[in-house]
Amino acid sequence: MDKKAIVVFSGGLDSTTLLHYVKSLGYEVYGISFDYNQRHKKELDYAKYWGKKLCKEFKIIDISFMKQIADNSSLLNDKEIPHDHYTNENQKITVVPNRNMIMLSIAVAWAENIKAEKVFFGPHANDYTIYPDCRPDFVDAINKASKLATYNHIKIEAPFVDIQKWQIVSLGTKLGIDYSKTWSCYEGKEKHCGKCSACQERKETFKILGIKDPTEYDVE
Amino acid sequence: MDKKAIVVFSGGLDSTTLLHYVKSLGYEVYGISFDYNQRHKKELDYAKYWGKKLCKEFKIIDISFMKQIADNSSLLNDKEIPHDHYTNENQKITVVPNRNMIMLSIAVAWAENIKAEKVFFGPHANDYTIYPDCRPDFVDAINKASKLATYNHIKIEAPFVDIQKWQIVSLGTKLGIDYSKTWSCYEGKEKHCGKCSACQERKETFKILGIKDPTEYDVE
Repeated sequence: MDKKAIVVFSGGLDSTTLLHYVKSLGYEVYGISFDYNQRHKKELDYAKYWGKKLCKEFKIIDISFMKQIADNSSLLNDKEIPHDHYTNENQKITVVPNRNMIMLSIAVAWAENIKAEKVFFGPHANDYTIYPDCRPDFVDAINKASKLATYNHIKIEAPFVDIQKWQIVSLGTKLGIDYSKTWSCYEGKEKHCGKCSACQERKETFKILGIKDPTEYDVE
Repeated sequence: MDKKAIVVFSGGLDSTTLLHYVKSLGYEVYGISFDYNQRHKKELDYAKYWGKKLCKEFKIIDISFMKQIADNSSLLNDKEIPHDHYTNENQKITVVPNRNMIMLSIAVAWAENIKAEKVFFGPHANDYTIYPDCRPDFVDAINKASKLATYNHIKIEAPFVDIQKWQIVSLGTKLGIDYSKTWSCYEGKEKHCGKCSACQERKETFKILGIKDPTEYDVE
């Protein structure tokens, strides 16, 4: 029997690649996504698409309580999304506090229940400077906490934590992923807006790689 | 201005004492409880009572998604509650997997939002053998993870982790707590059943201390 792994993913470039990557390692994959009334809820349509396609089981967990405890993030309210390149300052407004620990702790509970041996999630090197819960030392600490908190000593791994976004998409391209079926835009309208920082980063990633960007943008 | 602290509490003996204890240290206290459709939801009435009385702000967070990922626990379903003394084996059925990490991660998110410096929770020495997420090494690990995950380096503390339940109630008695306004019983009916392991432990605690048990039990 294949070993079980849970993958936390959102339908974005990185975590969709992660899902394919973990599957390619031979795990029986269980997918988990989170609905926190994010403005870009549209990502969940893509999560569902891949969840159905690649996972033994896929769940969307409602954590809309986030609004009750963290109303400062522009991803959870009507504040304007920064329409510039990622910089530390303009992106701080997109921080959803402690999001990774919350999502991981729920994924670990599910892992304990189905006797999965690992939980994977997808932070990468470009996240570091802005998001403290995407850094290698956080990954080490939460992995340790998870092993101690569970009867089955469940491990948490972040295989992309030391690589760049373009390297993730390079890997995904080799794995044959159709990236038109992923979502990045913070605005969450019908098409990718092409202007928000998430769209700009998406565009740049394909440009660096020198491969065709399959995304339809409102503003090219 | 007083320093802010968040206290995770449920309306039981231990965590109600914790709330009073943290308040006695001079913190401005923010209370958080969790509704996970626990069979003994009645504890939340008592949480609300103390939350209103002692906290600057009190929230009950809905984490009823627990049922979706962890249906093995007798506290979340209709399986029979063990009617014996606590033993490792018969109590394992009452384990809600990774409950503490989930609750703490949410409390930490709130702490980040309101700039609280600490999150307190109430595991104690009698919990050790059954619940891995009540042990000192878990407390250390999750404290480290929390400090790394947050801009404000929020600390997690469990001041009762090395003491026994009767010592907690001894402290609470000195703090003048009215323990008739707390809830332990797993059955969650009108009165404490007097038979489940939580009731037995409650009775014993007052007996060890040699003080009058203010609880009304169905079966004395």
